[in-house]
Amino acid sequence: MSSARCKIGVVAPASRMSADVATRVPALAQRLYPDRTPEIVFHPQCFASHGHFAGDDEKRARAFLDITNDESYDAVWFARGGYGTCRVVESIMCRLAETSKRKAYLGYSDAGMLLAALYRAGFEGVAHGPVAQDILRDAGDAAVTRALAWMIDRAPEALEPTVVNAEKTVAFNITVLSHLLGTPLEPDLEGHVLMLEEVGEALYRIDRSLFHITSNANVRRVSGIMLGRCSDVTPNEPNFGMKEEEIAQYWCQRAGIPWLGRADIGHDTNNKIVPFGAWL
Amino acid sequence: MSSARCKIGVVAPASRMSADVATRVPALAQRLYPDRTPEIVFHPQCFASHGHFAGDDEKRARAFLDITNDESYDAVWFARGGYGTCRVVESIMCRLAETSKRKAYLGYSDAGMLLAALYRAGFEGVAHGPVAQDILRDAGDAAVTRALAWMIDRAPEALEPTVVNAEKTVAFNITVLSHLLGTPLEPDLEGHVLMLEEVGEALYRIDRSLFHITSNANVRRVSGIMLGRCSDVTPNEPNFGMKEEEIAQYWCQRAGIPWLGRADIGHDTNNKIVPFGAWL
Repeated sequence: MSSARCKIGVVAPASRMSADVATRVPALAQRLYPDRTPEIVFHPQCFASHGHFAGDDEKRARAFLDITNDESYDAVWFARGGYGTCRVVESIMCRLAETSKRKAYLGYSDAGMLLAALYRAGFEGVAHGPVAQDILRDAGDAAVTRALAWMIDRAPEALEPTVVNAEKTVAFNITVLSHLLGTPLEPDLEGHVLMLEEVGEALYRIDRSLFHITSNANVRRVSGIMLGRCSDVTPNEPNFGMKEEEIAQYWCQRAGIPWLGRADIGHDTNNKIVPFGAWL
Repeated sequence: MSSARCKIGVVAPASRMSADVATRVPALAQRLYPDRTPEIVFHPQCFASHGHFAGDDEKRARAFLDITNDESYDAVWFARGGYGTCRVVESIMCRLAETSKRKAYLGYSDAGMLLAALYRAGFEGVAHGPVAQDILRDAGDAAVTRALAWMIDRAPEALEPTVVNAEKTVAFNITVLSHLLGTPLEPDLEGHVLMLEEVGEALYRIDRSLFHITSNANVRRVSGIMLGRCSDVTPNEPNFGMKEEEIAQYWCQRAGIPWLGRADIGHDTNNKIVPFGAWL
């Protein structure tokens, strides 16, 4: 546990962050760490708007680079998910400075596009976990408290509980992983426990995405799959006939991938931290 | 143009077909071809039900094989799309008899999973075009008339108009192609004009799928991409900021794939026939 102040930069490579977040998160951080309050800098780009996105592609890429290529930052924190990270990954990856490798990167959902590319490039501080905007959820302080505990102290209690027993781990939103397989963003998954979660999709779509994921040769080299929470599942017409856990087990069995049960991740305040790679 | 009666088998590897279709389609066929009315056999499996699907996985696979491995059939026609074909492709492909290679295969949307696998296996009669259930659309007779003209006579007027000028063509629903890339179903797309269409997706999802598709090394070897119709686009919150054609052009440009304009395909009665491979 360091006594130095941690400097965290918040950027939004996908959708725009709500303004409230920039007041509520620092206030919570001050209450949690009165003697060594982290410096949390919200890049102005977080509040930009360009159609669906928090600024156009170049603005979002440039903002990410402003933080990650600045030696003074210890952590790069995703403001939120939404959609749009895949558009900026290529232009970010080709402009990263050496100092970017030292930092922690924390996010989930759409951020998985960049987490994947950074991990593939050999970055060791990549993790799947809460974003700044999670503070707006009911009891969202718990999610942000966990994110800060990870970024500031790498606190083991912030981890998804099975991480400590796994050789290597990764975690993704199901739809996001499906859409990065076969692209230059796809990391080598061999020997990893792969944790998956989903939000706002019908069961037939979860089934189709898990067909896609478990049919992939790279994914078939994982040491096993765990299913996080699938929340806000949209109606299936007609009734799908299987629950999400049965669906995951079905595709694991067909693919010869060990089914390792449920993971404590999801689009909610209990979303635990999953580092990419070996924890220690 | 043959004077022999064409025998067409209808199967439903995905969702269940409506009962009306089995009376309306043969009635139309009789009006269109009074002297050589095609024999259209609806496999009983088309009306089966198992959760989301027209029967369980084995029942749907077996029904498909009943038609395709029976020498008396000239064409295998997909009853409809929906969802579920990806679940049965593997068990169908490993049980195909030699006679299956002679037949025409016609369908689109979810059926693209099987069309892809058959084309990859060297089948020469695979085509993207209307399904039997399209007769239930407003003025749906036009779609079924076109499908019959293709299956019975390979009528050139049924073709998507640019097909005759292309060396090789394929057509897919965007979401379906995205979900078969990287699986054992993925065909070699080198040198093909790739036509894409979509239904019922938000623009951010179309954008994400086109990122996925155009980032794939195999897809980058196509001779060009054409965009069919994107119908029933669901609301995007906030406004996406680009239309579907701008999105397709954007990703083609980024990927170095020639943009070839619009294709006359889609989830509607104007959905023209696109053979997989070389037309002649």
